[in-house]
Amino acid sequence: RPGRTFNEVLFFPSEMACMEHIFTPSSPYSCMCSLPHGVETSSLVFFVTSSLHRKGVTIRVLTDKDYAAITGSQIGVLRRAGICVRCGVGSVHMHHKFAVIDGRLLITGSLNWTLTAVQSNMENILVTEEPDLVQPFIKEFRRLWNHYDPA
Amino acid sequence: RPGRTFNEVLFFPSEMACMEHIFTPSSPYSCMCSLPHGVETSSLVFFVTSSLHRKGVTIRVLTDKDYAAITGSQIGVLRRAGICVRCGVGSVHMHHKFAVIDGRLLITGSLNWTLTAVQSNMENILVTEEPDLVQPFIKEFRRLWNHYDPA
Ligand SMILES: [Zn+2]
Ligand SMILES: [Zn+2]
Repeated sequence: RPGRTFNEVLFFPSEMACMEHIFTPSSPYSCMCSLPHGVETSSLVFFVTSSLHRKGVTIRVLTDKDYAAITGSQIGVLRRAGICVRCGVGSVHMHHKFAVIDGRLLITGSLNWTLTAVQSNMENILVTEEPDLVQPFIKEFRRLWNHYDPA
Repeated sequence: RPGRTFNEVLFFPSEMACMEHIFTPSSPYSCMCSLPHGVETSSLVFFVTSSLHRKGVTIRVLTDKDYAAITGSQIGVLRRAGICVRCGVGSVHMHHKFAVIDGRLLITGSLNWTLTAVQSNMENILVTEEPDLVQPFIKEFRRLWNHYDPA
Protein backbone atom coordinates (compact mmCIF):
# COMPACT_ATOMS: atom_id res chain seq x y z
CA ARG A 1 0.00 0.00 0.00
CA PRO A 2 2.13 2.93 -1.22
CA GLY A 3 1.66 6.33 0.43
CA ARG A 4 0.63 4.69 3.67
CA THR A 5 1.69 6.15 7.01
CA PHE A 6 4.82 4.42 8.27
CA ASN A 7 4.36 2.34 11.44
CA GLU A 8 6.72 -0.17 13.02
CA VAL A 9 7.20 -1.91 16.37
CA LEU A 10 10.43 -3.53 17.59
CA PHE A 11 10.80 -5.80 20.60
CA PHE A 12 13.85 -6.56 22.75
CA PRO A 13 15.92 -8.47 23.71
CA SER A 14 16.76 -9.09 20.10
CA GLU A 15 19.59 -10.51 18.04
CA MET A 16 19.34 -7.25 16.18
CA ALA A 17 20.54 -5.12 19.12
CA CYS A 18 21.79 -2.22 17.10
CA MET A 19 20.71 1.37 17.57
CA GLU A 20 21.30 2.47 13.99
CA HIS A 21 18.54 0.06 13.02
CA ILE A 22 16.15 1.97 15.20
CA PHE A 23 17.17 5.21 13.55
CA THR A 24 16.86 3.78 10.06
CA PRO A 25 13.55 2.03 10.61
CA SER A 26 12.77 1.58 6.94
CA SER A 27 15.66 -0.87 6.70
CA PRO A 28 15.58 -2.62 10.08
CA TYR A 29 17.56 -5.62 8.90
CA SER A 30 20.46 -3.95 7.12
CA CYS A 31 23.26 -2.92 9.41
CA MET A 32 24.43 0.68 9.15
CA CYS A 33 26.10 0.56 12.52
CA SER A 34 29.53 2.04 13.19
CA LEU A 35 29.55 0.59 16.72
CA PRO A 36 30.91 -2.96 16.86
CA HIS A 37 28.02 -5.19 17.79
CA GLY A 38 28.18 -6.53 21.31
CA VAL A 39 30.38 -3.73 22.63
CA GLU A 40 29.00 -2.24 25.81
CA THR A 41 28.53 1.52 25.93
CA SER A 42 27.22 3.60 28.78
CA SER A 43 25.05 5.69 26.56
CA LEU A 44 23.52 4.93 23.21
CA VAL A 45 21.98 8.37 23.34
CA PHE A 46 25.50 9.76 23.16
CA PHE A 47 26.50 7.41 20.38
CA VAL A 48 23.46 8.13 18.24
CA THR A 49 23.25 11.88 18.83
CA SER A 50 26.96 12.51 18.32
CA SER A 51 26.87 10.39 15.18
CA LEU A 52 23.96 12.43 13.78
CA HIS A 53 25.58 15.66 14.95
CA ARG A 54 28.69 14.85 12.92
CA LYS A 55 26.41 14.50 9.88
CA GLY A 56 25.20 18.08 10.44
CA VAL A 57 21.80 17.21 11.93
CA THR A 58 20.43 19.77 14.41
CA ILE A 59 19.87 18.01 17.74
CA ARG A 60 18.16 19.16 20.91
CA VAL A 61 18.32 17.00 24.05
CA LEU A 62 16.10 17.32 27.13
CA THR A 63 17.13 15.77 30.42
CA ASP A 64 16.65 16.28 34.16
CA LYS A 65 19.00 17.27 36.98
CA ASP A 66 19.08 13.72 38.39
CA TYR A 67 20.40 12.29 35.15
CA ALA A 68 22.78 15.17 34.43
CA ALA A 69 24.32 14.69 37.90
CA ILE A 70 25.12 10.98 37.63
CA THR A 71 28.58 9.78 36.65
CA GLY A 72 28.73 8.73 33.02
CA SER A 73 25.61 10.68 32.08
CA GLN A 74 27.42 11.97 28.95
CA ILE A 75 25.68 15.35 29.18
CA GLY A 76 29.03 17.13 29.43
CA VAL A 77 30.34 15.14 26.48
CA LEU A 78 27.28 16.06 24.38
CA ARG A 79 27.67 19.76 25.21
CA ARG A 80 31.39 19.74 24.46
CA ALA A 81 30.48 18.20 21.08
CA GLY A 82 28.26 21.24 20.40
CA ILE A 83 24.89 19.57 21.01
CA CYS A 84 22.22 21.69 22.75
CA VAL A 85 21.11 20.14 26.03
CA ARG A 86 18.53 21.60 28.41
CA CYS A 87 17.89 20.44 31.97
CA GLY A 88 14.65 20.34 33.95
CA VAL A 89 14.52 23.12 36.53
CA GLY A 90 12.25 21.46 39.12
CA SER A 91 12.28 18.19 40.98
CA VAL A 92 9.97 16.43 38.51
CA HIS A 93 11.65 13.28 37.27
CA MET A 94 12.02 12.95 33.48
CA HIS A 95 10.65 9.55 32.55
CA HIS A 96 10.10 10.21 28.84
CA LYS A 97 12.11 8.15 26.38
CA PHE A 98 11.10 9.57 23.03
CA ALA A 99 12.68 11.21 20.01
CA VAL A 100 11.17 13.10 17.09
CA ILE A 101 13.15 13.03 13.84
CA ASP A 102 12.70 15.79 11.26
CA GLY A 103 9.42 16.85 12.87
CA ARG A 104 7.87 13.83 11.21
CA LEU A 105 8.94 10.53 12.77
CA LEU A 106 8.24 9.62 16.41
CA ILE A 107 10.32 7.00 18.22
CA THR A 108 8.92 6.11 21.65
CA GLY A 109 8.61 3.12 23.95
CA SER A 110 9.85 1.56 27.15
CA LEU A 111 13.50 1.59 26.10
CA ASN A 112 15.92 3.66 28.19
CA TRP A 113 18.37 4.02 25.26
CA THR A 114 21.16 1.98 26.82
CA LEU A 115 22.75 -1.11 25.33
CA THR A 116 22.01 -2.97 28.57
CA ALA A 117 18.32 -2.30 28.04
CA VAL A 118 18.46 -3.48 24.42
CA GLN A 119 20.28 -6.68 25.30
CA SER A 120 18.93 -7.60 28.74
CA ASN A 121 15.41 -6.27 29.20
CA MET A 122 12.08 -6.98 27.62
CA GLU A 123 11.49 -3.67 25.87
CA ASN A 124 9.49 -2.19 23.04
CA ILE A 125 10.08 0.62 20.55
CA LEU A 126 7.29 2.07 18.47
CA VAL A 127 8.11 4.09 15.35
CA THR A 128 5.39 6.04 13.60
CA GLU A 129 4.76 8.89 11.19
CA GLU A 130 1.07 9.14 12.17
CA PRO A 131 0.56 12.93 12.62
CA ASP A 132 -2.05 12.48 15.38
CA LEU A 133 0.65 10.74 17.43
CA VAL A 134 3.71 12.74 16.34
CA GLN A 135 2.28 16.25 16.75
CA PRO A 136 1.45 16.03 20.50
CA PHE A 137 5.03 14.89 21.21
CA ILE A 138 6.45 17.83 19.21
CA LYS A 139 4.20 20.22 21.10
CA GLU A 140 5.19 18.74 24.48
CA PHE A 141 8.88 18.79 23.57
CA ARG A 142 8.68 22.51 22.63
CA ARG A 143 6.76 23.32 25.82
CA LEU A 144 9.39 21.63 27.97
CA TRP A 145 12.28 23.09 25.93
CA ASN A 146 10.99 26.63 26.51
CA HIS A 147 10.67 26.06 30.26
CA TYR A 148 14.00 24.32 30.72
CA ASP A 149 17.35 25.70 31.77
CA PRO A 150 19.78 26.14 28.88
CA ALA A 151 22.76 26.45 31.23
CA ARG B 1 -13.20 12.79 9.91
CA PRO B 2 -15.55 9.94 10.84
CA GLY B 3 -14.28 6.36 10.58
CA ARG B 4 -10.74 7.52 11.28
CA THR B 5 -8.37 5.40 13.35
CA PHE B 6 -8.40 6.54 16.97
CA ASN B 7 -5.12 8.07 18.19
CA GLU B 8 -4.43 10.01 21.37
CA VAL B 9 -1.44 11.09 23.45
CA LEU B 10 -1.55 12.11 27.12
CA PHE B 11 1.26 13.79 29.06
CA PHE B 12 1.96 13.85 32.79
CA PRO B 13 2.17 15.33 35.37
CA SER B 14 -1.35 16.50 34.79
CA GLU B 15 -4.24 17.94 36.76
CA MET B 16 -6.17 15.11 35.21
CA ALA B 17 -4.29 12.37 37.10
CA CYS B 18 -6.98 9.76 36.89
CA MET B 19 -6.54 6.27 35.51
CA GLU B 20 -10.13 5.82 34.38
CA HIS B 21 -9.50 8.64 31.95
CA ILE B 22 -6.75 6.62 30.37
CA PHE B 23 -9.07 3.65 30.04
CA THR B 24 -11.87 5.76 28.58
CA PRO B 25 -9.70 7.71 26.16
CA SER B 26 -12.56 8.95 24.02
CA SER B 27 -13.73 11.10 26.94
CA PRO B 28 -10.46 12.15 28.57
CA TYR B 29 -11.96 15.12 30.41
CA SER B 30 -15.02 13.54 31.98
CA CYS B 31 -14.35 11.79 35.25
CA MET B 32 -15.51 8.19 35.50
CA CYS B 33 -13.22 7.48 38.40
CA SER B 34 -14.29 5.49 41.46
CA LEU B 35 -10.99 6.24 43.19
CA PRO B 36 -11.03 9.56 45.09
CA HIS B 37 -8.66 11.90 43.30
CA GLY B 38 -5.44 12.58 45.15
CA VAL B 39 -5.54 9.38 47.15
CA GLU B 40 -2.25 7.50 46.95
CA THR B 41 -2.39 3.86 45.92
CA SER B 42 0.50 1.48 45.57
CA SER B 43 -0.78 0.02 42.37
CA LEU B 44 -3.02 1.50 39.74
CA VAL B 45 -2.60 -1.75 37.85
CA PHE B 46 -4.43 -3.43 40.67
CA PHE B 47 -7.11 -0.76 40.82
CA VAL B 48 -7.79 -0.79 37.09
CA THR B 49 -7.59 -4.53 36.51
CA SER B 50 -9.71 -5.46 39.53
CA SER B 51 -12.26 -2.83 38.52
CA LEU B 52 -12.48 -4.27 34.98
CA HIS B 53 -12.49 -7.82 36.37
CA ARG B 54 -15.56 -7.00 38.46
CA LYS B 55 -17.26 -5.89 35.24
CA GLY B 56 -16.64 -9.36 33.78
CA VAL B 57 -13.74 -8.41 31.49
CA THR B 58 -11.22 -11.22 30.86
CA ILE B 59 -7.79 -9.99 32.00
CA ARG B 60 -4.35 -11.48 31.56
CA VAL B 61 -1.37 -9.93 33.34
CA LEU B 62 2.31 -10.53 32.56
CA THR B 63 5.00 -9.68 35.09
CA ASP B 64 8.51 -10.77 36.08
CA LYS B 65 9.92 -12.48 39.16
CA ASP B 66 11.56 -9.26 40.42
CA TYR B 67 8.24 -7.43 40.52
CA ALA B 68 6.26 -10.39 41.88
CA ALA B 69 8.76 -10.68 44.75
CA ILE B 70 8.58 -7.09 46.00
CA THR B 71 6.35 -6.14 48.91
CA GLY B 72 3.15 -4.49 47.74
CA SER B 73 3.43 -5.88 44.23
CA GLN B 74 -0.30 -6.81 44.36
CA ILE B 75 0.28 -9.98 42.32
CA GLY B 76 -1.13 -12.12 45.14
CA VAL B 77 -4.12 -9.80 45.42
CA LEU B 78 -4.80 -10.01 41.68
CA ARG B 79 -4.62 -13.80 41.76
CA ARG B 80 -6.88 -14.05 44.78
CA ALA B 81 -9.38 -11.87 42.85
CA GLY B 82 -9.36 -14.50 40.08
CA ILE B 83 -7.19 -12.61 37.57
CA CYS B 84 -4.71 -14.72 35.54
CA VAL B 85 -1.12 -13.63 36.13
CA ARG B 86 1.96 -15.19 34.54
CA CYS B 87 5.55 -14.60 35.60
CA GLY B 88 8.73 -14.47 33.51
CA VAL B 89 10.78 -17.61 33.97
CA GLY B 90 14.26 -16.21 33.28
CA SER B 91 16.30 -13.33 34.62
CA VAL B 92 15.26 -10.94 31.85
CA HIS B 93 13.77 -7.81 33.37
CA MET B 94 10.24 -6.90 32.23
CA HIS B 95 10.38 -3.26 31.20
CA HIS B 96 7.21 -3.20 29.08
CA LYS B 97 4.35 -1.00 30.23
CA PHE B 98 1.62 -1.72 27.72
CA ALA B 99 -1.95 -2.98 27.63
CA VAL B 100 -4.14 -4.17 24.77
CA ILE B 101 -7.89 -3.76 25.23
CA ASP B 102 -10.33 -5.97 23.30
CA GLY B 103 -7.58 -6.94 20.85
CA ARG B 104 -8.08 -3.52 19.30
CA LEU B 105 -6.78 -0.67 21.45
CA LEU B 106 -3.12 -0.33 22.44
CA ILE B 107 -2.08 1.71 25.49
CA THR B 108 1.68 2.15 25.79
CA GLY B 109 4.21 4.71 26.96
CA SER B 110 6.73 5.57 29.62
CA LEU B 111 4.22 5.33 32.47
CA ASN B 112 4.84 2.69 35.15
CA TRP B 113 1.13 2.57 36.10
CA THR B 114 1.55 3.99 39.59
CA LEU B 115 -0.13 7.12 40.92
CA THR B 116 3.28 8.46 41.90
CA ALA B 117 4.32 8.29 38.27
CA VAL B 118 1.14 10.04 37.12
CA GLN B 119 1.50 12.84 39.63
CA SER B 120 5.27 13.30 40.00
CA ASN B 121 7.04 12.29 36.79
CA MET B 122 7.12 13.60 33.27
CA GLU B 123 5.44 10.73 31.47
CA ASN B 124 3.59 9.97 28.29
CA ILE B 125 0.81 7.59 27.32
CA LEU B 126 -0.03 6.81 23.72
CA VAL B 127 -3.40 5.29 22.85
CA THR B 128 -4.02 3.97 19.36
CA GLU B 129 -6.23 1.67 17.32
CA GLU B 130 -3.80 1.63 14.37
CA PRO B 131 -3.60 -2.09 13.45
CA ASP B 132 0.05 -1.84 12.31
CA LEU B 133 0.93 -0.78 15.87
CA VAL B 134 -1.59 -2.88 17.83
CA GLN B 135 -0.99 -6.22 16.11
CA PRO B 136 2.76 -6.56 16.92
CA PHE B 137 1.99 -5.96 20.63
CA ILE B 138 -0.73 -8.64 20.58
CA LYS B 139 1.68 -11.07 18.93
CA GLU B 140 4.45 -10.31 21.43
CA PHE B 141 2.04 -10.61 24.38
CA ARG B 142 0.88 -14.04 23.18
CA ARG B 143 4.47 -15.18 22.61
CA LEU B 144 5.48 -14.18 26.16
CA TRP B 145 2.25 -15.56 27.66
CA ASN B 146 2.93 -18.99 26.14
CA HIS B 147 6.49 -19.03 27.48
CA TYR B 148 5.66 -17.77 30.96
CA ASP B 149 5.03 -19.66 34.15
CA PRO B 150 1.33 -19.84 35.10
CA ALA B 151 2.14 -20.87 38.68
ZN1 LIG C 1 24.24 -2.73 13.28
ZN1 LIG D 1 -11.33 10.75 37.69
